[in-house]
Amino acid sequence: MDDLRTARTTVHRVPARGVYDRAAIDAILDAAPVCHVGVVVDGQPYVMPAIHARVGDELVLHGSSASRLFRHLRSGAPACATATVVDGLVLARSAFHSSMNYRSAVVLGVAREVAQRAPKLAALEAISEHVLPGRWTDVRPPSDAELRATTVVSIRVDEASAKVRTGPPADDDADLELPVWAGVVPLELVAQPPEPDPGRVRDEPVPPYARRPPAAYLGRR
Amino acid sequence: MDDLRTARTTVHRVPARGVYDRAAIDAILDAAPVCHVGVVVDGQPYVMPAIHARVGDELVLHGSSASRLFRHLRSGAPACATATVVDGLVLARSAFHSSMNYRSAVVLGVAREVAQRAPKLAALEAISEHVLPGRWTDVRPPSDAELRATTVVSIRVDEASAKVRTGPPADDDADLELPVWAGVVPLELVAQPPEPDPGRVRDEPVPPYARRPPAAYLGRR
Repeated sequence: MDDLRTARTTVHRVPARGVYDRAAIDAILDAAPVCHVGVVVDGQPYVMPAIHARVGDELVLHGSSASRLFRHLRSGAPACATATVVDGLVLARSAFHSSMNYRSAVVLGVAREVAQRAPKLAALEAISEHVLPGRWTDVRPPSDAELRATTVVSIRVDEASAKVRTGPPADDDADLELPVWAGVVPLELVAQPPEPDPGRVRDEPVPPYARRPPAAYLGRR
Repeated sequence: MDDLRTARTTVHRVPARGVYDRAAIDAILDAAPVCHVGVVVDGQPYVMPAIHARVGDELVLHGSSASRLFRHLRSGAPACATATVVDGLVLARSAFHSSMNYRSAVVLGVAREVAQRAPKLAALEAISEHVLPGRWTDVRPPSDAELRATTVVSIRVDEASAKVRTGPPADDDADLELPVWAGVVPLELVAQPPEPDPGRVRDEPVPPYARRPPAAYLGRR
């Protein structure tokens, strides 16, 4: 097993929920539409949402070249990227055991800029395909000026951990007789019917990937 | 307008998306099921998901008293809590203008522990009611030992900002004639049918709040 645990990523609280193997962590990174990226500026942590993709053992992120977050990431400062999927509400019979089912992956590392044209385009394609598989080949590709206005960074996924909670509530035995319904309410992110651009000058058919997006983070209803 | 902007929270990138008034920031905090909390340990940022609630001008968070995150928050170190709602995929005609519609609120501050019994219980009730309105009065309340095992912290929401993107794609004029469908695919977090605890020893009716959770972060389908 490819174990991504270090002292910094070992889960101490509820150790049984700690997960360190690469396949499980990769699956969580793939299953989240966005991640939250933390950096430190003058001792103050900042946490910002970012759109990501996993490319092999790398987590790639893109943003505006003018953004403070990406200027900071580019500089090689320590970073943390966390992807979380909320899977359900766990309704236990006690307040204490009430919880959520979730999957969360935490990646520690240092970002490096992906500056060269070919790998940068490949990373942008991976991010686009993560968000909406099938879309990349339909859109106008980035111009040179647009590429310059976009920063892509990459963080190696080699120090990471995940926490996962699944399944029904775990009530104390003494609470099982309480007259309280207990169970799980599953939650799913679901795509709604597509809304065409009101500013359109052509009537193009809605592509299948917009009607029923095949993205890993979406439910299939 | 109650303006929560400081130099540290001013949105530089796409300033038109920056939002600083308390009502807008409060609404985003209320509309997210979880937030992501950042702290710094030995210069390394750590970002962890946490269940939160807003109580007036305070953001309250709860976690295990044994967790490193909450031990660190309790110590009064600088923190950042970010709540993000992904509202849709923005399918522009170019890769560059492809985006997401989202609302994200960033709160900077220092956490203080809510240690006294009455405000601690009130915060736990607020968190429970944020996750699932109606549930708190049905569950067994926390025992003294459970209260000790739980840490509640509070961060004043007085230095914050939000970024919001809404509406259709904003394509370059030159791209409007491209034969590419453009528009928005709205996304919604949706509750699925409740799953009773397989370990139940009583058959209790499913409460209405579990069948159709009235939580602010859920779609109503």
